Amino acid sequence: MSAGTGPLDALLSALPGRVLIAPDELAAYCGDASRASLDGLPQAVVTARSTDDVVIALRWANQHHVKVSVRGSGTGLTGGAVAYPDGLVVSLAAMDRVLGIDPANRLADVQAGVVTADIDEAAAAYGLMYAPDPASYRESTIGGNIATNAGGLRCVKYGVTADSVAGLEVVLASGDIITTGGRTRKDVVGYDLTRLFVGSEGTLGVVTAATVRLVVRPTGDTVTFRAVFPTLATAGVAVTAIMATALVPEVMELMDRLSVDLVEKHYPTGLSTDDAAAVLVGQFIGRRAHEESAAAAEVCRAAGAVGVDEAEGDLLLEARRVSGRALSAEGLRVSSDVAVPIARLADMFLAIEQISREEGVAIPTFAHAGDGNLHPSVIVDPADAAARDHGELVLDRVSDAALALGGTLSGEHGIGSLKRHALPKQLDPATLAAHRLVKDAFDPQHILSPGRGIWGSSRIRAAVSAKGPDVSQRLVVMWR
Amino acid sequence: MSAGTGPLDALLSALPGRVLIAPDELAAYCGDASRASLDGLPQAVVTARSTDDVVIALRWANQHHVKVSVRGSGTGLTGGAVAYPDGLVVSLAAMDRVLGIDPANRLADVQAGVVTADIDEAAAAYGLMYAPDPASYRESTIGGNIATNAGGLRCVKYGVTADSVAGLEVVLASGDIITTGGRTRKDVVGYDLTRLFVGSEGTLGVVTAATVRLVVRPTGDTVTFRAVFPTLATAGVAVTAIMATALVPEVMELMDRLSVDLVEKHYPTGLSTDDAAAVLVGQFIGRRAHEESAAAAEVCRAAGAVGVDEAEGDLLLEARRVSGRALSAEGLRVSSDVAVPIARLADMFLAIEQISREEGVAIPTFAHAGDGNLHPSVIVDPADAAARDHGELVLDRVSDAALALGGTLSGEHGIGSLKRHALPKQLDPATLAAHRLVKDAFDPQHILSPGRGIWGSSRIRAAVSAKGPDVSQRLVVMWR
Repeated sequence: MSAGTGPLDALLSALPGRVLIAPDELAAYCGDASRASLDGLPQAVVTARSTDDVVIALRWANQHHVKVSVRGSGTGLTGGAVAYPDGLVVSLAAMDRVLGIDPANRLADVQAGVVTADIDEAAAAYGLMYAPDPASYRESTIGGNIATNAGGLRCVKYGVTADSVAGLEVVLASGDIITTGGRTRKDVVGYDLTRLFVGSEGTLGVVTAATVRLVVRPTGDTVTFRAVFPTLATAGVAVTAIMATALVPEVMELMDRLSVDLVEKHYPTGLSTDDAAAVLVGQFIGRRAHEESAAAAEVCRAAGAVGVDEAEGDLLLEARRVSGRALSAEGLRVSSDVAVPIARLADMFLAIEQISREEGVAIPTFAHAGDGNLHPSVIVDPADAAARDHGELVLDRVSDAALALGGTLSGEHGIGSLKRHALPKQLDPATLAAHRLVKDAFDPQHILSPGRGIWGSSRIRAAVSAKGPDVSQRLVVMWR
Repeated sequence: MSAGTGPLDALLSALPGRVLIAPDELAAYCGDASRASLDGLPQAVVTARSTDDVVIALRWANQHHVKVSVRGSGTGLTGGAVAYPDGLVVSLAAMDRVLGIDPANRLADVQAGVVTADIDEAAAAYGLMYAPDPASYRESTIGGNIATNAGGLRCVKYGVTADSVAGLEVVLASGDIITTGGRTRKDVVGYDLTRLFVGSEGTLGVVTAATVRLVVRPTGDTVTFRAVFPTLATAGVAVTAIMATALVPEVMELMDRLSVDLVEKHYPTGLSTDDAAAVLVGQFIGRRAHEESAAAAEVCRAAGAVGVDEAEGDLLLEARRVSGRALSAEGLRVSSDVAVPIARLADMFLAIEQISREEGVAIPTFAHAGDGNLHPSVIVDPADAAARDHGELVLDRVSDAALALGGTLSGEHGIGSLKRHALPKQLDPATLAAHRLVKDAFDPQHILSPGRGIWGSSRIRAAVSAKGPDVSQRLVVMWR
């Protein structure tokens, strides 16, 4: 096809100034925080500025059978936003406006590319809060949070992203725009398409805008306690016991000693385990916070905590938030995101310790413990393919252990490209097939994030590119 | 086809003792609490005792292109469970076991036909509670609650049925059994099929079992206040103002004077409006209940309440629960289930009053006010077709008013057979089409509740059968 009349030229002229095609520009849109990428550049990146831009991009992709990946800030950890060679990247990062705060109904209207923390900040002006706060919330976009149904520290009290989404604007693969949900507290008209799109990882449509629910920003005393445990299992017992009471912590996070040590190495905060195995950080806010914190601390002592004290909360939570970054600073972090029923936490920690011993690798683990959601990781040299493969095998064993305890492969990061092979371990064939029914209905040509999120005929081969950005660059990009 | 070899005989021999075909037995399975029914008996009712029974029934229906309706207790208000002439009814009422309570993970495993209050009672033995409590919860089944995503009095604090469903077992139209969700607090593996089936009104599959979430049963003081208002609009202002505070009421219900009078007539409780327009009943439970109730009462006074007092809670809530029954005892209750954004409550009440004046009919209204969910009704003589049609027209105007305020046609009852014509008022064509994509994917032959729940080519013609049970019988059946 001659220059000026090819498919790409049609896209360039339909979206003037919003299509990147220069290789050096494309490179920045190839990977995500998983550091996985595919071998080859996309043919173009659409930097959408409106819903109509997305419509044009998807119609074009459908017409020309081009694979589409969707991205916000690229902070995903499962390769969900990785570009397809010769594919099209739709970037929503420029659709970054909070369209309005509706304090009377406790709602915010936002574009998909707005950084999650910006919603919370806009809400704070009205004494309100956008609750879900993935560790990446100062970088990640609400669209990405919605695509993965992201969790976060405060989710133990307020629920995950899906619980805060009231409605969506979505561009389907066909280019049709649909709106789901609304502004009421209750609505049973039609299927819950809102929830269907939340967590669908860009495989069913592109979320371009959302109405999200806000909560009253908690006021009163903020009390944070730190409990240090001699073993991870005793910490697990304590968390299970706390979550079986009527206490509703604002935060209930756990870091093992390996994680604490790496945080101290790369982002020193003065946090210490006193050489014990695990640190549990709980927080309560409100008029009864001191009393509630004391009650939780007592549960910790009864479970075997060797030290419990009140502590400076912001520092502890910041240490928890940088945990992933600290581990990544050591090398390639092959990470997991399993969740178990809350009563099985201790069993899960014991299983991780056993796998660590048997495989001869350290498995630093931090956790949204109050939600039973753990992030065990293995740190490897990205250039050492054997170590990388072994890391994946180790974490597959961790996943198997979680499933054996009635858990799930992923509590908040999603399946993306990297965990798809494990889906049949969790979902039976009929349920996998039901997922495919939905995918086929919404995206019959499979142009949207094909081969990701759901089970299909082949495992996507994700490779960490040796030519990719090095660790320090990646940290700059991903954790700016 | 000769006797003994027809399709029905195949069903009878596949499910011995579980298929009803005698006309006098079938009649009891024809209608629901909407009192709508279709002209003609189903050919059979399967009284399923196991998931496998449902599989056999659906395979049979698919093979023979027989329309299937699904029912629990028949307490639905939108004709969703009404039998199709020559269709098949799948009754789940005999699948009524609580399979287990898992207190450590705060979960209950139940069959679909268990009466909702029985789950709550089983949970109470562990100090736990199954929160969603539709007014019918002592008769309605969890399967029906799941099919409609039922609300209830306590939902203002704990959320609707969907918020309490952790996982489902579903038989698809094909007869395949799938399982969705699980036992963890967080899980993002695959699409949220659980939420897709909750509220799908039997159009995508038959829910046969569920894992539902329990909460800690609230303890401490229970304080109930009653606030009497001179107008519905001032009551609306009060509720909006209360729900804009950090107060979290256990219950926030409203009854207008017409509803109170009818409750007193049919189920005397001593409840009175003191001749004012509306009674608001709020409840708080816990150590700060008195203080919280006093704060809410103060908001009511500021909004114009002419009387506020603490009252006997059980009596008031029971009066609220029997409101629908009391209205139905007066005649045929043509009922509505609109919801509006919480800040528009007063506007909605004003709109209802205007419609009542303009149409020259009383519109008794009770409401889950704290959720912005209203049940305006028109009571007509079931034998008076013109009055019935006018009642429907009046409530269509109420729906239009709710939509104009950013609301929804249905907060908790669903669309069923009776509200389908109004769907295009709320959902745009592309969104309606997206619903059909889902329906076609899961039920390509449209054997499951065809012509219900979602928009299609024709409005189902629902007729109140003159031969149907009279009001008192209906009440006995539906409100036993």
